[in-house]
Amino acid sequence: MSHLDNDIFLRALLREPVPHTPVWLMRQAGRYLPEYRETRKRAGSFLALCKNPALACEVTLQPLARFDLDAAILFSDILTVPDAMGLGLYFTEGEGPKFERPLAEEWEIRNLAAPDPHVELHYVMDAVAEIRRALNGSVPLIGFSGSPWTLACYMVEGGSSADYRKIKKLAYTRPDLMHRILDVTTQAVTAYLNAQIESGVQAVMVFDSWGGVLSEAAYREFSLVYLQKIAASLVQEKEGRRIPSIVFTKGGGLWLEALAASGFDALGLDWTMDIGRARALVGDRVALQGNLDPAILLATPEIVVAETCRVLNAFGPHPGHVFNLGHGISQHTHPENVAVLIETVHTHN
Amino acid sequence: MSHLDNDIFLRALLREPVPHTPVWLMRQAGRYLPEYRETRKRAGSFLALCKNPALACEVTLQPLARFDLDAAILFSDILTVPDAMGLGLYFTEGEGPKFERPLAEEWEIRNLAAPDPHVELHYVMDAVAEIRRALNGSVPLIGFSGSPWTLACYMVEGGSSADYRKIKKLAYTRPDLMHRILDVTTQAVTAYLNAQIESGVQAVMVFDSWGGVLSEAAYREFSLVYLQKIAASLVQEKEGRRIPSIVFTKGGGLWLEALAASGFDALGLDWTMDIGRARALVGDRVALQGNLDPAILLATPEIVVAETCRVLNAFGPHPGHVFNLGHGISQHTHPENVAVLIETVHTHN
Repeated sequence: MSHLDNDIFLRALLREPVPHTPVWLMRQAGRYLPEYRETRKRAGSFLALCKNPALACEVTLQPLARFDLDAAILFSDILTVPDAMGLGLYFTEGEGPKFERPLAEEWEIRNLAAPDPHVELHYVMDAVAEIRRALNGSVPLIGFSGSPWTLACYMVEGGSSADYRKIKKLAYTRPDLMHRILDVTTQAVTAYLNAQIESGVQAVMVFDSWGGVLSEAAYREFSLVYLQKIAASLVQEKEGRRIPSIVFTKGGGLWLEALAASGFDALGLDWTMDIGRARALVGDRVALQGNLDPAILLATPEIVVAETCRVLNAFGPHPGHVFNLGHGISQHTHPENVAVLIETVHTHN
Repeated sequence: MSHLDNDIFLRALLREPVPHTPVWLMRQAGRYLPEYRETRKRAGSFLALCKNPALACEVTLQPLARFDLDAAILFSDILTVPDAMGLGLYFTEGEGPKFERPLAEEWEIRNLAAPDPHVELHYVMDAVAEIRRALNGSVPLIGFSGSPWTLACYMVEGGSSADYRKIKKLAYTRPDLMHRILDVTTQAVTAYLNAQIESGVQAVMVFDSWGGVLSEAAYREFSLVYLQKIAASLVQEKEGRRIPSIVFTKGGGLWLEALAASGFDALGLDWTMDIGRARALVGDRVALQGNLDPAILLATPEIVVAETCRVLNAFGPHPGHVFNLGHGISQHTHPENVAVLIETVHTHN
């Protein structure tokens, strides 16, 4: 088994006993850190930063230099896979990610093919290998991907959307084409995550950021089925160690029991659901990751302590909790509040 | 008791037996109708349309001339109350509602006062009276307001928001000021709804559009408590008839049982929750209104029929269902699909 100084994150995901609750934060390498903003400026753009393994490694490690975090997460974007499919990812200031060539015509959907992660996405694999070397066995490295449904949302809408009407119209009127996109994307995501595991990530997370915009029936048909396929096809072990998997459907609190049976080791929770109630619902089937409202980090240190304890107490003294926010950290967060949060989690009884 | 040709909407809200499921659609008087776009053009702006009782009456009646709807809803905006408080409501194309003078300073919050609905909002009461005359007892008229939390979101953020960080920061760091805003707004909403009832509306609905952005604990503290206060203070009867009340927390599926005990007669459901599961959860305590995904209306008539039947079948043969969408109708909807939906609801066994 490869050496790890701190493996409590991996153990908590597998519901094994740990000395204290592990913690990491979604988007922990990000704009709230001045050193991140400096590196990003040097890179020229967000996408250039993602595509440069040395700089991606640099920003991945920045929050670990400041805070006593129990895991690192690969610095990348959820949309690298459709970019590698040829859709042309770009970013506009304040408007989020967009695609130059969103899927509009039937022939474009028929021509869609899963990229070879070692070719079109080799920059990600290079970053993973470089980060693993730099971490030098201190904490585990998390790899990730967007979920098929979430990637498809961006691929069809061409960017984020207020109502997702293009993709919903496609899903309801041409389910054959919708499933074709989801099939190809599922193959691509599975190969991508397994390549990340081969390259050195020690846990994987699937971000189903837009699963929550669907009805329950549509969620089961267009998102959950594909999440199950991915879970069933992930590499289970590497370097003598289990590779735990996490799935996070934002707004998926209503479908938690179905998610708990989807084959992942842990469920990410957004901040809307009481984590104690979530634990009671999923029982001992999966670990839970979450779920402080990131807006709490905009308040005072005293409130950060109180609300962090509220989440820890709601989960209670059971195995299988990884502390996190319920969504990515806000760029408006003061780094001092992050230090307070982590100290609170680690010293909580 | 005042005369009504068709009272099945009111009876379904009170869980009384009805010959078929009643149906109306959120935002049924709106941009998907060419005649609405024509009247709005004539009015000059959306706000001018809201503030002109004759034109508000005209657009309220437009969908009833086309479709066999079981209720009319007052044409207005949820933000008339904070506008009447002096915040200066305005609309910019494509960006939604905004306030010229959002609440930023403590003195502004301390100075906040509930408007007299018969003075600052007399144009709404005039519209209600005019619509009642024009309806002439055909179907009931629904009045409405935004919820205190939802109004406060706009009042503090100054418009819609991606992360609600201004109001959440206020709620977490200065709960005293947050509760001051919510107290005044609750008084204002209660007086506003009761004035609408006095002026002739026959049911009322509270739109808690942004309750779903909160954690469960914050939802209970900053939204639910105030909804309960409103429910407890609404006029119960007018013209010899019960005035049923509906509350709709978008994204509130996780808190449905608490909402069922909040004092309203019916709960509006967004499209994310299976309505059969919702009915099983709330039992016979309240009626349910909903919950087709509005995106279904962008598909073919065959799919509109199938998905409408799916919602009706999921609810099952129980009393207390008002069919509706899970959110306002999309401006991109073909009116023919609305006709198909209503025919399907009315002829369903």
